[in-house]
Amino acid sequence: MKIRIFDTTLRDGEQTIGVSLSPDQKLSIAKKLDELGVDAIEAGFPVISEGELKAVKMITSEGLSCEIAGLTRTIKKDIDAAVDAGLNYIHTFIATSDIHLEHKLKMTRDQALEKAIEAVEYGKSRGLQVEFSAEDASRTDREFLKKVFGEVAKAGADRVNIPDTVGYSTPEYMAKITKDTVEATKLPVSVHCHNDFGLAVANSLAGIHAGAACAHVTINGIGERAGNASLEELSMALKCLPYDQKYETNIKSELIYDASRFISKTVGIIVQPNKAIVGANAFGHESGIHTHGVLSNPLTYEPISPELVGRKRWLQVGKHAGVHGMNAMLSEYGVKPTEEQSQQILDKVKVLGDQGKQITDVELLSIASDVLGEKDLKKIVQLTGFSVSTGIGTMPYAFVKLNIDGQDHVGTDYGVGPVDAALNAIQKITGKLSEIRIKDYGLASISGGSSALCEVTVKVEDALGNKVSAKSVGEDIVTTSVKAVIDAINHIMLKKLLHEKQVR
Amino acid sequence: MKIRIFDTTLRDGEQTIGVSLSPDQKLSIAKKLDELGVDAIEAGFPVISEGELKAVKMITSEGLSCEIAGLTRTIKKDIDAAVDAGLNYIHTFIATSDIHLEHKLKMTRDQALEKAIEAVEYGKSRGLQVEFSAEDASRTDREFLKKVFGEVAKAGADRVNIPDTVGYSTPEYMAKITKDTVEATKLPVSVHCHNDFGLAVANSLAGIHAGAACAHVTINGIGERAGNASLEELSMALKCLPYDQKYETNIKSELIYDASRFISKTVGIIVQPNKAIVGANAFGHESGIHTHGVLSNPLTYEPISPELVGRKRWLQVGKHAGVHGMNAMLSEYGVKPTEEQSQQILDKVKVLGDQGKQITDVELLSIASDVLGEKDLKKIVQLTGFSVSTGIGTMPYAFVKLNIDGQDHVGTDYGVGPVDAALNAIQKITGKLSEIRIKDYGLASISGGSSALCEVTVKVEDALGNKVSAKSVGEDIVTTSVKAVIDAINHIMLKKLLHEKQVR
Repeated sequence: MKIRIFDTTLRDGEQTIGVSLSPDQKLSIAKKLDELGVDAIEAGFPVISEGELKAVKMITSEGLSCEIAGLTRTIKKDIDAAVDAGLNYIHTFIATSDIHLEHKLKMTRDQALEKAIEAVEYGKSRGLQVEFSAEDASRTDREFLKKVFGEVAKAGADRVNIPDTVGYSTPEYMAKITKDTVEATKLPVSVHCHNDFGLAVANSLAGIHAGAACAHVTINGIGERAGNASLEELSMALKCLPYDQKYETNIKSELIYDASRFISKTVGIIVQPNKAIVGANAFGHESGIHTHGVLSNPLTYEPISPELVGRKRWLQVGKHAGVHGMNAMLSEYGVKPTEEQSQQILDKVKVLGDQGKQITDVELLSIASDVLGEKDLKKIVQLTGFSVSTGIGTMPYAFVKLNIDGQDHVGTDYGVGPVDAALNAIQKITGKLSEIRIKDYGLASISGGSSALCEVTVKVEDALGNKVSAKSVGEDIVTTSVKAVIDAINHIMLKKLLHEKQVR
Repeated sequence: MKIRIFDTTLRDGEQTIGVSLSPDQKLSIAKKLDELGVDAIEAGFPVISEGELKAVKMITSEGLSCEIAGLTRTIKKDIDAAVDAGLNYIHTFIATSDIHLEHKLKMTRDQALEKAIEAVEYGKSRGLQVEFSAEDASRTDREFLKKVFGEVAKAGADRVNIPDTVGYSTPEYMAKITKDTVEATKLPVSVHCHNDFGLAVANSLAGIHAGAACAHVTINGIGERAGNASLEELSMALKCLPYDQKYETNIKSELIYDASRFISKTVGIIVQPNKAIVGANAFGHESGIHTHGVLSNPLTYEPISPELVGRKRWLQVGKHAGVHGMNAMLSEYGVKPTEEQSQQILDKVKVLGDQGKQITDVELLSIASDVLGEKDLKKIVQLTGFSVSTGIGTMPYAFVKLNIDGQDHVGTDYGVGPVDAALNAIQKITGKLSEIRIKDYGLASISGGSSALCEVTVKVEDALGNKVSAKSVGEDIVTTSVKAVIDAINHIMLKKLLHEKQVR
């Protein structure tokens, strides 16, 4: 059974507190969603501002393949704004729960029902496809909800939507009201679930099992408060989980990770490492038991292959490490310790882990080089001097001194920030020597004082397209960043060196 | 019905890739969990390293109120290590799915069953409480799973646990195997769900509805890959959602937010803003419709009161803003525009929002001051000079020049990083003048190049305990941080000023 994916990243997603998008940014997201294969997007809420109207107009003029809807209250001027924005599809809503009627709308149930019918009729009279939402449906009197949906269906609505506005529904209740709605309307029913108790995806799936034909979702689950059902979790659950009934969507799953990163960056909302499907750690393994399993057969500790969502698996060592995973990582660099050497290396790794330290690949290779007595594995780029300044009325500028294979090199540069300046200076030196470029720079810090730790992740690439990443943790964000870059550069140079050795 | 909360932040949570905790850190987390009211904690996996054994010993010696368990394979040396660590409760596991048996354990089903029985018997012979887990239960042949659980119950297990090891179960299937297990064992059954498809909490709840007495959870849902069922979501769902059956836990819900922040900081894993219950945005509101509703009655757009989990509600203006929310924010500062002035202010806010800009409280006040012509509302602390340096072989040090009420003040200081140095220098000036202290500093950045934007959030507090926060976004992390602090200081000084005006 094909399930329709209605993406509301540009409406619910943009209502995330602190998020404001310019029309150009909205258009770029619309294009990305269209490529991903969503069936419909909610482009915005045209009546709220001039810029929003303009953004929706730009999107409706773009010739996208997906359907494009706009949000309206059950108010004529909202519907007129949708028409002005070039839309032929509206998502119109009015609250139906007693708490919303009494405290927000100051209306009776009958008055709200009347407004709903008027809006549907008006939308149809303007030639629009009309999807009607009974806001706060999950807290609406069940009989009244059935009545509202039945009446708007009679009034000509094309689709109806059940919003769990404050994420208060259970999967069991969502199934019940979805069945009610399908029966009362005989129309295609959508579900629109919020994540206040972490149940948005489960509630959406329960609605679908009970007969809903469509789910409203957002990329990365962004949206007001705890956000909405996430597109990546819902679509992959439908595709992969062992349901009796087979489900399909039009989502091109291998584009999911790219879309997730694009939207995270554009809206400025971070994805946590332990987010399903798209979090940094979703396909990473550290513990000995897990890496051992994954190396024998990835499906032991992965429900799906990372490539299915456009990603790659990664391993790391630490205090939970085992010999199998560690040796797999070392063998990537052509290092093959004996059984006894392996145990010695692992013991050293665990001592570091017990001190609360993370062990990067370069540190692992450095430990291995000590145990094996191989000089080649020693760090070959060393940071021997570094200074950076920034302020108001100046561009940030940096000085870097690197020792590479025993020779000193210095470089200076400026940048948009102190980290950028330092990385530019490093790049000036290493680019000349080995065509290594910094491709990606990620920064994370924990709230809790300016002396909190920050974590820097960098990715570098060489001329052959080899990519490696490295991570560093410290209190001084600038110095920590520089250390991570030096680690990554060593990592890629070692890789090349060992590769050349193998070829010889 | 009372549900038992078994927290595994110190075991599954620590197996998060990149996380290594020292024994002291593990003990501090154990104490925090005990305060929170969990019934049991899994303190670690004693056999994996010396440090882990030491950490578990420290935790078992602390005299905590909760039960303390340790993980073991079905191997004697693991169980002996648990006894050595002072534990009287083990969680012992062996995989039972064919994929794990064939590719990881290289065992037959019968061999695995035999190992399971031996471990339970050995654990009991050492005087331990034994909880047995059939790893990868959700992908185990259903009849074989029943048999394994039945046999370990006969062998003397005290509890059994159903792990959905790769997060592959649906709530429906979790309910089925929970029922099977309760019937086969007549023992207290736990569920242990992973979040690979975002269903960990829903699957745990489905297990509980089907008869499980306990859920294994972690704070913030941390754990391998996409993590585990999160304590905060599960416990609040049990407490608040409209189930036919009433559920309770021993969790002190008002301590949840504090525990979440403590653990995020200690393990170094960030919580995304749209995380349910504990995310920064979970109780924030921006859109006009939502803030209007919340101001009439918070329950219109909040399923629960933020105070219930130790938090506060917050509002912000932006392109989705409405007059009601904006005026509520202005009235906090004693600013009461006329209807016409309100519309003028809102129009200006929307123009900024349409450009993709976030509007802080101070910017809102500044716009209001333009419209109202009130000089008092202008920024009173201005950053007129600033410079900072850091590097290797130096401490980061900063110079700051502030103009306060027309008078220049300068300050210098050093710190653990350039941001810390700059904030220390500011604090030296403002502390002297007005007893304002920087309480909290948060930093977020999006992966994607060292020139990516970063977002800084600061909280400051004055001597009266007034707290305000401000946010700033920019490319230069140090300068952006300083601007956010200046905004926050202005904000708190305005608050005081307006308060004094009202008192007069």
